[in-house]
Amino acid sequence: MENNKYKVLFHINEPENWKKVITNIKNFIKDIGVGNADIEILANGNAVAIFKDSNEYKEILDQLSEITAKGVCIAVCNNALNAHEVNKEALPSFAKVVPAGITEIVKKQMDGYAYIKP
Amino acid sequence: MENNKYKVLFHINEPENWKKVITNIKNFIKDIGVGNADIEILANGNAVAIFKDSNEYKEILDQLSEITAKGVCIAVCNNALNAHEVNKEALPSFAKVVPAGITEIVKKQMDGYAYIKP
Amino acid sequence: MENNKYKVLFHINEPENWKKVITNIKNFIKDIGVGNADIEILANGNAVAIFKDSNEYKEILDQLSEITAKGVCIAVCNNALNAHEVNKEALPSFAKVVPAGITEIVKKQMDGYAYIKP
Repeated sequence: MENNKYKVLFHINEPENWKKVITNIKNFIKDIGVGNADIEILANGNAVAIFKDSNEYKEILDQLSEITAKGVCIAVCNNALNAHEVNKEALPSFAKVVPAGITEIVKKQMDGYAYIKP
Repeated sequence: MENNKYKVLFHINEPENWKKVITNIKNFIKDIGVGNADIEILANGNAVAIFKDSNEYKEILDQLSEITAKGVCIAVCNNALNAHEVNKEALPSFAKVVPAGITEIVKKQMDGYAYIKP
Repeated sequence: MENNKYKVLFHINEPENWKKVITNIKNFIKDIGVGNADIEILANGNAVAIFKDSNEYKEILDQLSEITAKGVCIAVCNNALNAHEVNKEALPSFAKVVPAGITEIVKKQMDGYAYIKP
């Protein structure tokens, strides 16, 4: 039943934590099975640096693309994109821009999402 | 309506994260509007070091004063103050001392506050 | 009453944070009294390194043994144990292995546990 699905928000604000987040999510999906959870990653702060240099962060971007294909949502804070002068036209199509990352985190928790900060 | 306000607790335990917390809160208030959220910062561990040296941390203390004027509450763990030998008489008037930081975090979450660790 | 007990999950994924977690829990129990909270530590990622070298981490392991005697539960992610090639036969008896750390964190929050990341 839709209402019994797990709901999880992963919060990341440092680029060095992307690998941890991706490993966490892969292990989580492996444990509970594809389609049994609503999973979102909310990236703010320095974590959005991966969208500035797609060569340096190619491996991470590839893996994000891979997990979004399994239903994971990637939300990115618009304030952080502006602060890091990221070209929004060049964002990967899997990234969903939200006006303020903190508001997104609060709304998700109000909506019953568990919060995890890897 | 009072009951529909956002409620958010920011947890900080390292002094280098104060700037992140302050930026997060400013962007959050800008997004949702002043007065539309109950916002508290709970500082424990090394984060209370800012209350030991008001010269070194002047900029942060000024900004904390500024956001408390917008209704943000700053709660400080008494155990951490003791461990860092902070002179409590000299604490800024905006700081509210709580007996144990962890208890405060737990109570706030039981009271419906979202938890964010920047 | 059982249902009014505090419920708290501490998440740790880096070995340098064990001391913080242990101090947090000791202060918390001192504040609310033994037996008044369900407290669990969920260790994943690099935090499980303490189970590889019981000499290097003797002090931490001793303190964990001490707090489990006060009812604190220590859950350890099986994926992390495998990734760090920890010999599971040699785990301290207080450690409870869970198949996936993230699933454990999500389930606990669904069960009303507050989440704290020291």
